[in-house]
Amino acid sequence: MFFLRLKVHFTLCLIFIFPLFSWAQNGKAGQNDEDAFFIRGIYDQALTHSSAYEWLHVLTKKIGARLSGSPQAAAAVSYTRQMLDTLGLDTVWLQPCEVPHWERGAPEVVRVVSSYKMGSVTLNGVALGNSVGTPPSGITAEVVEVQSLNDVDELGEAGIAGKIVFYNRPLDPTQINTFRAYGGAVDQRGAGASRAARYGALGVLVRSMTTGLDDVPHTGSLRYDPNYPAIPAIAITTNDAELLSKLLEEEAVRVYMHSSCRMLANEMSYNVIGEIKGSEHPEEIILVGGHLDSWDLGEGAHDDGAGCVQSMAVLQTLLQLGYRPKRTLRCVMFMNEENGLGGGRAYWKASNDKKEYHLAAIESDRGGFTPRGFTCDGEDNVFRRKFRRVNRWLPLLEPYGLGLSQGSGGADINGLKSQGGLLFGLYPDSQRYFDYHHTSADRFETVNKREMEMGAAAMASLVYLLDKYGLD
Amino acid sequence: MFFLRLKVHFTLCLIFIFPLFSWAQNGKAGQNDEDAFFIRGIYDQALTHSSAYEWLHVLTKKIGARLSGSPQAAAAVSYTRQMLDTLGLDTVWLQPCEVPHWERGAPEVVRVVSSYKMGSVTLNGVALGNSVGTPPSGITAEVVEVQSLNDVDELGEAGIAGKIVFYNRPLDPTQINTFRAYGGAVDQRGAGASRAARYGALGVLVRSMTTGLDDVPHTGSLRYDPNYPAIPAIAITTNDAELLSKLLEEEAVRVYMHSSCRMLANEMSYNVIGEIKGSEHPEEIILVGGHLDSWDLGEGAHDDGAGCVQSMAVLQTLLQLGYRPKRTLRCVMFMNEENGLGGGRAYWKASNDKKEYHLAAIESDRGGFTPRGFTCDGEDNVFRRKFRRVNRWLPLLEPYGLGLSQGSGGADINGLKSQGGLLFGLYPDSQRYFDYHHTSADRFETVNKREMEMGAAAMASLVYLLDKYGLD
Repeated sequence: MFFLRLKVHFTLCLIFIFPLFSWAQNGKAGQNDEDAFFIRGIYDQALTHSSAYEWLHVLTKKIGARLSGSPQAAAAVSYTRQMLDTLGLDTVWLQPCEVPHWERGAPEVVRVVSSYKMGSVTLNGVALGNSVGTPPSGITAEVVEVQSLNDVDELGEAGIAGKIVFYNRPLDPTQINTFRAYGGAVDQRGAGASRAARYGALGVLVRSMTTGLDDVPHTGSLRYDPNYPAIPAIAITTNDAELLSKLLEEEAVRVYMHSSCRMLANEMSYNVIGEIKGSEHPEEIILVGGHLDSWDLGEGAHDDGAGCVQSMAVLQTLLQLGYRPKRTLRCVMFMNEENGLGGGRAYWKASNDKKEYHLAAIESDRGGFTPRGFTCDGEDNVFRRKFRRVNRWLPLLEPYGLGLSQGSGGADINGLKSQGGLLFGLYPDSQRYFDYHHTSADRFETVNKREMEMGAAAMASLVYLLDKYGLD
Repeated sequence: MFFLRLKVHFTLCLIFIFPLFSWAQNGKAGQNDEDAFFIRGIYDQALTHSSAYEWLHVLTKKIGARLSGSPQAAAAVSYTRQMLDTLGLDTVWLQPCEVPHWERGAPEVVRVVSSYKMGSVTLNGVALGNSVGTPPSGITAEVVEVQSLNDVDELGEAGIAGKIVFYNRPLDPTQINTFRAYGGAVDQRGAGASRAARYGALGVLVRSMTTGLDDVPHTGSLRYDPNYPAIPAIAITTNDAELLSKLLEEEAVRVYMHSSCRMLANEMSYNVIGEIKGSEHPEEIILVGGHLDSWDLGEGAHDDGAGCVQSMAVLQTLLQLGYRPKRTLRCVMFMNEENGLGGGRAYWKASNDKKEYHLAAIESDRGGFTPRGFTCDGEDNVFRRKFRRVNRWLPLLEPYGLGLSQGSGGADINGLKSQGGLLFGLYPDSQRYFDYHHTSADRFETVNKREMEMGAAAMASLVYLLDKYGLD
């Protein structure tokens, strides 16, 4: 792009006009100039002197996938604890938690065995997390395609018993926020197996949870309803889902599916925590966090290595700038978000038992993409008032492309809501997330250094404002 | 991310709170509901039925790099003309233009030949576009490092003559808008060779124009000042620039550089144009465009295959929706933006000769990333009034993450400014652009389908509003 002479002109005149809310109206012009200056310093520091990208490199390339209960998850605990130790925090500790230990076993096989038109066709699939395996001889049965859990209810035992149920409702590609598209389809993955088992299905195939058409299968957790038999569930790629659906339009299709995944005994693991004690209100905690565990495919780079290293970078950056917080700043890397939330639950319990007060908790668990702002959540009786207060800081955040909206903070921090503070979720650009989510493609190379660093800077800026002004 | 039970909750409650400007205040609530509905339709259509991604696949994978004067550039003209012919426009035509024909020749060699510490070290470099080649025996000379054109002036003949000047000022990584970082460094690439030649330099090396540290050299155009000898210029990677700079801190360094690039005779080429005649004001033109040519490295995917297919997709989408414009909508794929602007100049001249009026022109030439809005430019005497008018449409664009700011429209449309309309540049997220810009890495795989389609939808939405309401 850009022929030179015009380009220079362009860059000189490219002055973004952001809504110029007048802070002077609040009679606080000087103070807010100081805030703008400090936030600019946070971004400068995060884009030039953060260790986040190096930490992510180790987590993804040297350690790799970090499924709860795996040796890699233990390595990640050890490594991040060591890194927190280098930052000069007041305290660093491990918080024990019990986690499930699921294993994928041998590569899954999904094969159309009866197509008159196509002969034998292999479909690319991966078992859903927490799924049981098939019998050693696999399962061979006729496939019935459905679009929803309701379809299964309607087909009932007559239509379902003895069959493999194939959930094929796609993510809605017209959703601008791809998390909404995900939310509109993920019940098939989470609850599809038990719903089908209720009517006697032998197994389920699930269309991968992604916005596009591609050849990468997406795992993710399912949850068995204890009232029905646990039957095996395998996600197939969106391209293969389309193929299978086409075959089913023309003829009855039998599929062979085989998996050897299994749930082992629970393991002990840890949340990794570091904090800086507040100088004026140490009893008010501001938490930043992500989750250390990942699925066993890929490297857990966006989900959620990025969130972990961003959270560590928040404390690193503030310390590098010589900032001494009034309130207690705590970085928490949670264990077992993906398939049990063991770390989150242990943290909430300990925190509530100690009657802690989290003034705010910020989770980054939507990928290391360019930040667009934060979603915000809280108890009904405090939310409106506190959210209004946070909205007054928008003019300081908008120059960095950040907005605020109502929405969940994150799975790992949700149990802190009852403490009466606010929960925030970093909200990055969501277009690419489901290209990688829960797949072998979630690798270090797909994380852009600047985009991820800007997410850390956004979190640090919000932490700074929360710490300086509180919420009351 | 997201344990299932919480996730479903999350997606249900994630309602983004955008500034709710009340359109009802204008007494136009009904009309603007209609506009919101139509724009939603544009996005739905662009995200599900656009051919943009397939077109981009052909441009990049089947045709490839499209340097002005090359056979591939001719193929791109032919292909995009054919694709416009399929859309059902009123007129499709080719507009002749004269373009330079530069050739890179054999792979460039840059080698440190004198380092006591390192021995012989090969640096990864590519000649800058429009550069002359070295003599067949190459150039071997001592290197002098500078940070700016001013440094060269200060060193003068005594410090420069007989040497290779190494421009090593990096892009400022703290700029949130990476185009600003680019604008702050690119004078070294564009004007560095002639400035050094003024004082008798034999050649120049230029640090690649990218925000990060990597191993990919970035080409791009230089411009020779006819008052001084044309000396060869080669861009080296940012990692190699750092290495060379370190060596220079410790000892004198001699470098051998060799290139065989050359400028051939000008060629005839074409802008590719298609239009839909306006039903009420055919004399008012709304242009959407990008540039067909690219550098000879990579596949010209982001720069600017994306802009071309987005521009075609704007007309395709509006026609698919059955929209009949009041004003004339014209898609222009310009030739030779990268090293001469031959296509742009031919278009401006023809348009001005015919006394055409471009009510608006929108260029996409900043990569196929998630759109964040538009920059807008115009003649001083009309800009404020017309820009205010466009700003009234913001509430319709903000739900799609789009804003408006003052800034250049784009190199290819800049010559239309004197017609008194507005120029717009699509402004996408800029963090990744300089990972790919002008390099072998600018490939189809780096373009996310949804991000690129959303750019086309953003352009189509603005076209719709411009067409429906005009600017007066």
